[in-house]
Amino acid sequence: MTKKIRVSIVGATGYTGAELLRLVLGHPDLELAAIVGQSKAGQRVSDVLPSFAGILDGEVEAFDAASVAERSDAAFCALPHGASAPIVEELCDRGLKVFDLSADFRLRDPAVFEAWYKAKPSGRFGKAVYGLVELYREALRTADLVAVPGCYPTSAILAIAPLLRSGLVEADGIVVDSKSGVSGAGRSPLPSTHFPETAEGIRAYKVASHRHTPEIEQELSVAAGREVKLVFTPHLVPYTRGILSTSYMVAKPGVTAAECTEAARALYQGSPSVVVRDPGVAPDTLWVRGSNRVQIAYAHDPRTGRIIALSAIDNLVKGASGQAVQCLNVRFGLDEGAGLRGAPQWP
Amino acid sequence: MTKKIRVSIVGATGYTGAELLRLVLGHPDLELAAIVGQSKAGQRVSDVLPSFAGILDGEVEAFDAASVAERSDAAFCALPHGASAPIVEELCDRGLKVFDLSADFRLRDPAVFEAWYKAKPSGRFGKAVYGLVELYREALRTADLVAVPGCYPTSAILAIAPLLRSGLVEADGIVVDSKSGVSGAGRSPLPSTHFPETAEGIRAYKVASHRHTPEIEQELSVAAGREVKLVFTPHLVPYTRGILSTSYMVAKPGVTAAECTEAARALYQGSPSVVVRDPGVAPDTLWVRGSNRVQIAYAHDPRTGRIIALSAIDNLVKGASGQAVQCLNVRFGLDEGAGLRGAPQWP
Amino acid sequence: MTKKIRVSIVGATGYTGAELLRLVLGHPDLELAAIVGQSKAGQRVSDVLPSFAGILDGEVEAFDAASVAERSDAAFCALPHGASAPIVEELCDRGLKVFDLSADFRLRDPAVFEAWYKAKPSGRFGKAVYGLVELYREALRTADLVAVPGCYPTSAILAIAPLLRSGLVEADGIVVDSKSGVSGAGRSPLPSTHFPETAEGIRAYKVASHRHTPEIEQELSVAAGREVKLVFTPHLVPYTRGILSTSYMVAKPGVTAAECTEAARALYQGSPSVVVRDPGVAPDTLWVRGSNRVQIAYAHDPRTGRIIALSAIDNLVKGASGQAVQCLNVRFGLDEGAGLRGAPQWP
Amino acid sequence: MTKKIRVSIVGATGYTGAELLRLVLGHPDLELAAIVGQSKAGQRVSDVLPSFAGILDGEVEAFDAASVAERSDAAFCALPHGASAPIVEELCDRGLKVFDLSADFRLRDPAVFEAWYKAKPSGRFGKAVYGLVELYREALRTADLVAVPGCYPTSAILAIAPLLRSGLVEADGIVVDSKSGVSGAGRSPLPSTHFPETAEGIRAYKVASHRHTPEIEQELSVAAGREVKLVFTPHLVPYTRGILSTSYMVAKPGVTAAECTEAARALYQGSPSVVVRDPGVAPDTLWVRGSNRVQIAYAHDPRTGRIIALSAIDNLVKGASGQAVQCLNVRFGLDEGAGLRGAPQWP
Repeated sequence: MTKKIRVSIVGATGYTGAELLRLVLGHPDLELAAIVGQSKAGQRVSDVLPSFAGILDGEVEAFDAASVAERSDAAFCALPHGASAPIVEELCDRGLKVFDLSADFRLRDPAVFEAWYKAKPSGRFGKAVYGLVELYREALRTADLVAVPGCYPTSAILAIAPLLRSGLVEADGIVVDSKSGVSGAGRSPLPSTHFPETAEGIRAYKVASHRHTPEIEQELSVAAGREVKLVFTPHLVPYTRGILSTSYMVAKPGVTAAECTEAARALYQGSPSVVVRDPGVAPDTLWVRGSNRVQIAYAHDPRTGRIIALSAIDNLVKGASGQAVQCLNVRFGLDEGAGLRGAPQWP
Repeated sequence: MTKKIRVSIVGATGYTGAELLRLVLGHPDLELAAIVGQSKAGQRVSDVLPSFAGILDGEVEAFDAASVAERSDAAFCALPHGASAPIVEELCDRGLKVFDLSADFRLRDPAVFEAWYKAKPSGRFGKAVYGLVELYREALRTADLVAVPGCYPTSAILAIAPLLRSGLVEADGIVVDSKSGVSGAGRSPLPSTHFPETAEGIRAYKVASHRHTPEIEQELSVAAGREVKLVFTPHLVPYTRGILSTSYMVAKPGVTAAECTEAARALYQGSPSVVVRDPGVAPDTLWVRGSNRVQIAYAHDPRTGRIIALSAIDNLVKGASGQAVQCLNVRFGLDEGAGLRGAPQWP
Repeated sequence: MTKKIRVSIVGATGYTGAELLRLVLGHPDLELAAIVGQSKAGQRVSDVLPSFAGILDGEVEAFDAASVAERSDAAFCALPHGASAPIVEELCDRGLKVFDLSADFRLRDPAVFEAWYKAKPSGRFGKAVYGLVELYREALRTADLVAVPGCYPTSAILAIAPLLRSGLVEADGIVVDSKSGVSGAGRSPLPSTHFPETAEGIRAYKVASHRHTPEIEQELSVAAGREVKLVFTPHLVPYTRGILSTSYMVAKPGVTAAECTEAARALYQGSPSVVVRDPGVAPDTLWVRGSNRVQIAYAHDPRTGRIIALSAIDNLVKGASGQAVQCLNVRFGLDEGAGLRGAPQWP
Repeated sequence: MTKKIRVSIVGATGYTGAELLRLVLGHPDLELAAIVGQSKAGQRVSDVLPSFAGILDGEVEAFDAASVAERSDAAFCALPHGASAPIVEELCDRGLKVFDLSADFRLRDPAVFEAWYKAKPSGRFGKAVYGLVELYREALRTADLVAVPGCYPTSAILAIAPLLRSGLVEADGIVVDSKSGVSGAGRSPLPSTHFPETAEGIRAYKVASHRHTPEIEQELSVAAGREVKLVFTPHLVPYTRGILSTSYMVAKPGVTAAECTEAARALYQGSPSVVVRDPGVAPDTLWVRGSNRVQIAYAHDPRTGRIIALSAIDNLVKGASGQAVQCLNVRFGLDEGAGLRGAPQWP
């Protein structure tokens, strides 16, 4: 039996932290080292995360870099942007492999980071590998710091990148219209996520200004081999988990949905987390709920010459914690799907 | 006291029928003449529509054109397309003003109708006035047959038409991404609207093929003064009432969100059902639930030169039954907002 | 035309306040005098309550007793308990008829109040008329201060009181199991009402300790003519509006559901807000949503000798704001159902 | 490596069938032999169960007893009652261990079965072991036919049985008020589970007449050592998965919530699926969602002398498919929690 990899979770009491706990506990090759959560330090895990009652008996720890480093081979940081960078730096300094779920290391251009985040980039900014395994698998094998992608970018990039790489669509004029479940907004109660004002309606938010925009553009520019600018509109939908992105692209002349489907299948050949459905299927986020899978399908509108890509993920799994585990699997030479093969919870 | 207008509802036991009942009962100038519903004929209204227990004591009637005509000045037909046309024709023949909520008379080009509905148009096809009051108010004053617009078209046209009429956006390249509550699918139980497979996920449907597409195009072509083709994608969202349409347009050079807002306010000056919010507001369908109002707001994305229009309606009210009553108000010379001024039910 | 009654709403920016606004605006005999809300004073109504955009243009006022009194014949106070009493006292002192939606004046025994609310009763404690119109109609005609009942008590008392008054059930051993929509928890965001932790599960709360218990007991003791103690368990259900109470009682020998139904129909004869359904019907809160109606039905379990009462209300209407308007109607000699006849919003 | 146990699922395309598929695929000691579903035979699994796209590639088979028996050591039957018995009999005849999720073999008294199900019991009626592992663990080790308990009974019995067995509460006067998510109604679309009439309201159903009543009574009679009759009221709650049962019992003199808690902990010592929380906790069904766990807590109401038990399960897991797997684990001598240790999916 091989030795298990010891992992700590910093920021364990939020939604992505809790999902990391669930995934680590179910992973055959990982061992949970520390459950760190600054604001809940000293409380019993089962009080803070009642779904772990009977499963985890200890307490949430305060963050202590030395203590975490001593007990861990790797750390997942599930902290808000800004708060994450200094902790990531400390843990990297101490030699841990760090998988950061914040936005602090995802962008590569410091000017873009400063413009969108109104903050100075951290020391290792630009040094992380972008943790979209399907596109950066090789680089991840040796990464010391992984910037786990945002939830919206994951759903959009996986659907659009194959078409740009294959030259099937124009790089200009892309529209990404995304619909997220409310867990994406995090665990802090806000008026905008208060049940009575969230449950029986739908709205857009941060129109033309959401910070995931430059992240999507960065990766699609790589895919296109030229700069891509696009419109991205997030919406809040009254359910808990899932993102559906409906992406609109201008088809190159003669391109069909079947060709798009083939291009995506070719690119994702061997990727355990991507399921490209036949044209005509409209993936539902319920079909991937609780799993690390994305379902993608393409349609062609011959009347307008558009390709419509539909992509569904669970924002907390493939859009965050599952993807982080997938990155770790690749980094540590494990089976990429280890601990992530569970079928979605449907219905 | 003026004599009340006697109205019958044909197809009263579906969702738009029930909403017509609610609105007619609350309308100061209308009198309910007949409650007609073929499949439920003979049953007590309170058994079929339990929210009317204690309010309506009678039975649902079978359809009898002569009987309905004798007792009514006007009829609302809330029937599926195809089933509606023959009944509408009969009632028109007998001199009633008819407000048809089906799609049978909305289009004006028979070839387009045949292509999308795979059916021959009815005798009065092309003779109805399109019942979007804000755009056809004058024509409605003398209409004998009104084709009440579809729910999706209402949300999209009201938001986009002012910009096309004012030349603020290009007529090409429009994308309409709409999100509907489940009541839009009607009252018949289907696998696609079964609670467990609908409640905790979101999906697109009828991608690049929904029949509301040519209806939106028809009216936006009028607004643009030239043919408009666009992409329209409907989505099913896990709540009951409401449609949010997010529409993407290419801005003419230099156009701002403020100008779009002004153009819409100018066009809808004096329209009691339209509320154009300031740029920066993102209307929530919850803000119009249960009311005949639409809330519209515009955003500009300077990075891509796009205008994004957000428009929220209650699909059963402004998207169907309330709009039908609004048409009747105009046709019979009543105050346009009579019976429709109730504030939304929030939260 | 009679002069309208001028009413102010103090605490207008919470959910019951917003619902009062909606009802007052739709009421033929009321005129809105002041919209008061301490924490939002100075903000535009449409910013604080976006469903009133295009309907109400003014600002929320800070509370000024003199100013409110000068402009108003009556006031609705929709404030938290404790905060309400001093404002109620001030407005009563200035001669307004006050309809208080808080718990500050509902109980009649100061010792019970102190035991459950850990606070001293206010000066007018014990002087208010309990505003359950169906049981206190006569007293309300001359009331200066009305304590509008709590949402849970309304649903439970209306269902159980007729049976106790008629001696059909035992006064001992009553169990009230209530299920509430989340709007009952108010507008302040809390972890317990945060969408992701509320939307896809159900839980009880304040088991054997909810403060509505003594209120239900007080009124059922009146109905029974002796002291009633009962078990009351509230639950939080993932939807916004409505309370369903399932109440269990020990039937007197030989009693049937039909007799219970008759007793309730006799007591509520002429009451526009109560609908007693036939045995076999199971009222759904959706059937009363947005309306001031309660639907009640009774079942008998011959195997155990129990009567089961099912009662459904909209907690914000018959459970709060609508009931307050109903009280005002009675107090000012208006038609009891004025402004409250609207059919429920279904579905 | 030990040989895997080959299991078939008959009735694989409903909700409990799909959940069995998920659990079997994630189980280290099981091998999926046949996916049987009469009405969908010949269709691709991924078309019928879209969450298994990319996971299961085959087709749904028609039922053929010989073929299933040849390839399987055990079968799960997830069929409606009545339809299940003949198939169960056939598979038992051929030597398979059968885990039947229907109600056909749960009761032991044929007269009770006939009275509630209006049908003749099947040949092996009375021969099955009742598959509530926590109470029948020993008998299950040698069972040839296991009647997997109903969802409501599981939630109620596990909470109440310890108190009856310990003599802490009276056997008379028990009230069980249960609230179920909509998946409990199965996969066939019905008016009563149509989204718009189910999503934003709550209702009771089958009041004093639900067929799970005699099942609960049978097992609580065993626990009490005398006949138990009780009131059971199921409710439909607008979310997909979960049952919360609130059970009311008359406490024996002096009994406290702490004693009840201790009694339950003692009984369930070593049971991996039961978590007994401290008094004061109110278990939420969200805390067990997707897992084979039940969370139970007790409260005492000293004012009325009642014990209130709260118990939360996922109706599709501990209330059906997970419990079936748990039974199989015990029957085949595996670790009782094998394949069932996954943490709940929260939020």
